[in-house]
Amino acid sequence: MSIVIIAPTRDSSLWIAPLLEMSEGLSVFDYEEVPDKEAVTCAVVWLHPYGVLREFPNLKLICSMGAGVDHILNDPHLPNIPITRVVSDRLARSMNTFVAMGVLNYHRNFYKYQQDQRDRVWDQDTFPELETRVGIFGFGYLGQEIGLMIKKMGFEVYGYSQAGRSAHGIECFAKDQLDEFLERINVLVGVLPMTKETDGVFSKSLFKRFKQPVYLINIGRGQQQREADILEALETGVLSGALLDVFESEPLDKESPLWEHPKVVLTPHIAGITNPEAAVPQIIANYQAMKTGGELIHVVDPEKGY
Amino acid sequence: MSIVIIAPTRDSSLWIAPLLEMSEGLSVFDYEEVPDKEAVTCAVVWLHPYGVLREFPNLKLICSMGAGVDHILNDPHLPNIPITRVVSDRLARSMNTFVAMGVLNYHRNFYKYQQDQRDRVWDQDTFPELETRVGIFGFGYLGQEIGLMIKKMGFEVYGYSQAGRSAHGIECFAKDQLDEFLERINVLVGVLPMTKETDGVFSKSLFKRFKQPVYLINIGRGQQQREADILEALETGVLSGALLDVFESEPLDKESPLWEHPKVVLTPHIAGITNPEAAVPQIIANYQAMKTGGELIHVVDPEKGY
Repeated sequence: MSIVIIAPTRDSSLWIAPLLEMSEGLSVFDYEEVPDKEAVTCAVVWLHPYGVLREFPNLKLICSMGAGVDHILNDPHLPNIPITRVVSDRLARSMNTFVAMGVLNYHRNFYKYQQDQRDRVWDQDTFPELETRVGIFGFGYLGQEIGLMIKKMGFEVYGYSQAGRSAHGIECFAKDQLDEFLERINVLVGVLPMTKETDGVFSKSLFKRFKQPVYLINIGRGQQQREADILEALETGVLSGALLDVFESEPLDKESPLWEHPKVVLTPHIAGITNPEAAVPQIIANYQAMKTGGELIHVVDPEKGY
Repeated sequence: MSIVIIAPTRDSSLWIAPLLEMSEGLSVFDYEEVPDKEAVTCAVVWLHPYGVLREFPNLKLICSMGAGVDHILNDPHLPNIPITRVVSDRLARSMNTFVAMGVLNYHRNFYKYQQDQRDRVWDQDTFPELETRVGIFGFGYLGQEIGLMIKKMGFEVYGYSQAGRSAHGIECFAKDQLDEFLERINVLVGVLPMTKETDGVFSKSLFKRFKQPVYLINIGRGQQQREADILEALETGVLSGALLDVFESEPLDKESPLWEHPKVVLTPHIAGITNPEAAVPQIIANYQAMKTGGELIHVVDPEKGY
């Protein structure tokens, strides 16, 4: 029995080492180096090429490396076996610090000062603090944790979700209260799961409802944004700027105008990257459970999509 | 009776407008436009040229625009009249958000990702989170508030001060425990008042006691740092990087190698800049008290230096 790592965009050695460290006697291979495909019973995957899971006839378990599983569920050749995902405070923590960083860099006008540094300009008359009221678009577990972090830092913060369930003393607006929500905020944090409803949500039809220029931070999924609309909204001032961690197509095309847009800061989908240290114990627990007939944790419901 | 604003590095109109707005009937002038120097009874100052206060024979009160007053006390021609400073939660808040921003940008390896953006490089294998244990060097009111903010964000944090008084549940080390303090931290935040003891403290003799590479954030005073030593420590890796808001000489010389050092991020002394909105009510209260013989607030003791 062995484990295969199928994650072409990642360095698999960063996963193989902790897996071996935490559970002696495992056999773990990168997809390119599997000696015997029939021996593989578990696949640990991130953005695997569709179809390749069918190469392993005895596969019994698919483990996502992260919280998201849309990349797995979209595989048209997906074997009908259990899929697990990573549910981790560590992931929430990493999304928290990323969004907090983005909010503070906006609040303190940091990008302006960086430009001044490049230009060797000493300018104390810029506003060193911008008014900042944060809206969390998608107020589930991760959104609520992010909201709490922003609140603890002393900022005004609001949530928006289908149900409009408030949490941590943070007022949350429901689906039919979008305008009320948008009235209150000038920084919008996208932390939505990928579903049919959220497909392309960060586009013209949302932007035209903004009550004031909005700074957009998206750490959800790139398919939730229409980058042409974002670029247009940056030109017209409807968006005051954007910190994007996700993109319609990843890796982002070398020719994308986002790379050098003066109002765009981008990172390569690392806001909430799951550290192997957080994910590996869950993967090992599920691997052992699969071998011994024990109960799997964090099993995905393909109908719900998470 | 009138008020003069003497702040050559700042835009005085940003102070005159709120002063007039909050107290109708005041006469307030920029230093360059005072019609009658004998009518001036109050000077609101920031980095005034030494000696100029002597041009106002009826001056009765000097108000610092900020928390620091070393720039006033160092004037060899200082009139012997009361000096007040600004004591403001607003100032603490602004220092908090600045330091929090600096800590998060370090923690999330943000400058590396910005370089990648400029190079159009999509690299997910960099560590997206660096181990971060923060030391607050100078654990008075402002240092304690900053410590609390960093703690709320979920980071390990320690204080260091002469007396070693802990606060907000944050362990504080005393003067003779420098090595114990330095063992625990890899981000050092300087928030010291300017005194004989703190002159040049961020220099070789401190750096050589570091137990591991340290990221330096200085928001105290530039005279507390020896920039030649900082540059050397960056070269040798003793410092892993620096966010500097203050400089030995301000404005920072156009020729300084700090401007384009790849490991240095700099801002023009704006970490804790006092917003006119926070300072103006205190200045007006003191101006009225001076006119009516009432009690001044936040009066400076020239012996103590604050």
